[in-house]
Amino acid sequence: MNMAQLFEKKKHGKELSQEEIKYFVEGYTNDSIPDYQASSLLMAIRLMGMTDEETFYLTKAMIESGDVIDLTSIKGFKIDKHSTGGVGDKVTLIVTPIIAALGIPVAKFSGKGLGITGGTIDKMESIRGMRTELSSQEFIDNVNKHKIAVAGQTGNLVPADKKIYALRDVTGTVDSIPLIAASIMSKKIASGADGIVLDVKCGSGAFMKTQEEAKKLADAMTAIGEKLGRKVVAHISDMDNPLGRMIGNKLEVVEAHALLSGRMEETHADLLEECVIISSLMYQVAAGADEQTATAAVKRVLEDGSALAKFEEFIVAQGGDVADIVQNDTAHKVAVTAQQGGIVDTINALLVGEASVALGAGRLTKESALDYDAGIQLVAKKGDKVAAGDTIAYLYSNSEITQDTINKVQSAYKMA
Amino acid sequence: MNMAQLFEKKKHGKELSQEEIKYFVEGYTNDSIPDYQASSLLMAIRLMGMTDEETFYLTKAMIESGDVIDLTSIKGFKIDKHSTGGVGDKVTLIVTPIIAALGIPVAKFSGKGLGITGGTIDKMESIRGMRTELSSQEFIDNVNKHKIAVAGQTGNLVPADKKIYALRDVTGTVDSIPLIAASIMSKKIASGADGIVLDVKCGSGAFMKTQEEAKKLADAMTAIGEKLGRKVVAHISDMDNPLGRMIGNKLEVVEAHALLSGRMEETHADLLEECVIISSLMYQVAAGADEQTATAAVKRVLEDGSALAKFEEFIVAQGGDVADIVQNDTAHKVAVTAQQGGIVDTINALLVGEASVALGAGRLTKESALDYDAGIQLVAKKGDKVAAGDTIAYLYSNSEITQDTINKVQSAYKMA
Repeated sequence: MNMAQLFEKKKHGKELSQEEIKYFVEGYTNDSIPDYQASSLLMAIRLMGMTDEETFYLTKAMIESGDVIDLTSIKGFKIDKHSTGGVGDKVTLIVTPIIAALGIPVAKFSGKGLGITGGTIDKMESIRGMRTELSSQEFIDNVNKHKIAVAGQTGNLVPADKKIYALRDVTGTVDSIPLIAASIMSKKIASGADGIVLDVKCGSGAFMKTQEEAKKLADAMTAIGEKLGRKVVAHISDMDNPLGRMIGNKLEVVEAHALLSGRMEETHADLLEECVIISSLMYQVAAGADEQTATAAVKRVLEDGSALAKFEEFIVAQGGDVADIVQNDTAHKVAVTAQQGGIVDTINALLVGEASVALGAGRLTKESALDYDAGIQLVAKKGDKVAAGDTIAYLYSNSEITQDTINKVQSAYKMA
Repeated sequence: MNMAQLFEKKKHGKELSQEEIKYFVEGYTNDSIPDYQASSLLMAIRLMGMTDEETFYLTKAMIESGDVIDLTSIKGFKIDKHSTGGVGDKVTLIVTPIIAALGIPVAKFSGKGLGITGGTIDKMESIRGMRTELSSQEFIDNVNKHKIAVAGQTGNLVPADKKIYALRDVTGTVDSIPLIAASIMSKKIASGADGIVLDVKCGSGAFMKTQEEAKKLADAMTAIGEKLGRKVVAHISDMDNPLGRMIGNKLEVVEAHALLSGRMEETHADLLEECVIISSLMYQVAAGADEQTATAAVKRVLEDGSALAKFEEFIVAQGGDVADIVQNDTAHKVAVTAQQGGIVDTINALLVGEASVALGAGRLTKESALDYDAGIQLVAKKGDKVAAGDTIAYLYSNSEITQDTINKVQSAYKMA
């Protein structure tokens, strides 16, 4: 077998066989296939697509490129969730304690953020003392004892994805639905969960800009899950507007805590609604409950304080200081005012996300340092009435805040 | 500017600007753009195509990547020809002395062969003493004195093409009409000719398999020539069958000499016809003659012996020994016989070409050594009547001739 035959088939829109896909993934992972051949094939895949069968074989070969985490020593059905990434998306911090409070084991591996997309690990690390690197034993023990552990990916998990993703990032081949689906699903399945709820974000602040694309990605991922014997459901949610009021690592932890504490004035109904949907789906998948029962169960643990108690228990279990969940003062703080009055129609999530990166809350490259306290607080949300000159947002940073960043947030607000 | 923006446009079928194309060609040539980004863009071009404007800018940027040969010290209109490559294609050896005999300066740079496609330089080097590496001064002096010089490409001519071609060869991006057109035309134009006749081969033994593809390539190349102020005409010729009777370096020189000497029994009418067409077109382009006048002039120098005299003068001028233009005995010689009788309908040029490479007449890789005396003589040609058991071809080689090679030539003959 050689790459020439793979190019020939994919160029002409023919299906690659399981053996051909395995040859590519293995060869690229072990460096016998050079970058320049891999990137050419990836561009051919980007332009000619992949069938569900091919995407499944790609995912399978990627999983087999490294270790698979064995969670069999955790009792019960292990549920995981994944978000394709958005602005202000702190859903994981809220739904995992809800599910754990319902007695379902949550064994979750998360990543760091890149660009406008925040990462759960960064948010956790903004809490004083909180550890995200756990040994396998500690991870398993925590899930068995507390029903919850969230850790950074360690070890040799899907090395093929690390290499392929790094190449896609610089060769114009990130925006391919089969490649995205295989990348996400290979990591989720190698992480050992029995069931996965996928939160596919759609809109200006997400990778998928249209409902049609989001639906395609959701379908591609659920098809892979089905073929690999996992229970997978996908939910498509709006990312034209940032989720909740806070964008920034520590700010989002504070908002998650406020929501779990029932202090709704510090957060927003859109975040609560989204968290209820996702945790209800997780409970449905894990416990086989119907929607009505699951939603009622979720609301009960939110209202009776057991989700909040689980959140604090989880933080303490991983070394975090619950007393540190407070909004710290930053060296710079700017109030952004409305240029004109009206009803807020949309807050462009992409612009808000870019501003949060400029403030220090996100990374431009994998090496960028984060300012954990930096971020944005959205005072006015979609549907709110504002007058010209009203404060619509606050910007926080320990670096100088530029006029450009202020303008970006101001221009993100579109009035009806 | 960066490659991300080029990927984004080309992926979505948008036209790259002159600046973007120049950025890519310059950057790749000077190693600031890595192979893996270049190959991804080349695959996007292979699949999404290029407009005539883009192909022109690509050609221009490739020409500007290196030196351009200055032929202004040669008096008169300099004419060149290029064949896209075929099996038994010794046309250059015949038409260049014809044109020189008509008083038109022929300043031609040629390449070495690769795969089933022979190269003029290899054929010339099969003649004892013949030099194909000439200094610029000797090259120009020869054209001024003898009206003809043919040399290997030297110096820093279109370095972008060398790098891009080597990458295309291993990334599935050879078969792209704009990339082929830019590759050929950049080299031809950097070689300094005022006019170019393109012989686009079409059929099983050629790169372009269909008339439609051949026409597209011809149109792409003439469009480039027009935009760069050169007189360019293209002729599409059959390459389902090998041209003439001989395939192999020395064998083809002997056949060219036989044709120019009028010994038609040693060659075939298809080769004569093709040479008359190409040299007539060259004379039309160079001298502005009409077709009838040009064809008559070509036939005159063939019949009166002045083309033959020019051929021998050209060989002597470059150090070659005319007495060496004889078919040498080889260590092995095999007669291939017809499996069944009938009228020869086609002789598959691809199979014959592959057999000639196996005999040592062609290169599998750039580093392969050639057996100059190896090759194939087609005793029976298209339209000939043969009986089962008749000799239809002879195979010559200084290495052992395998049954596989014999079978290949035998199976190349299809009877009507």
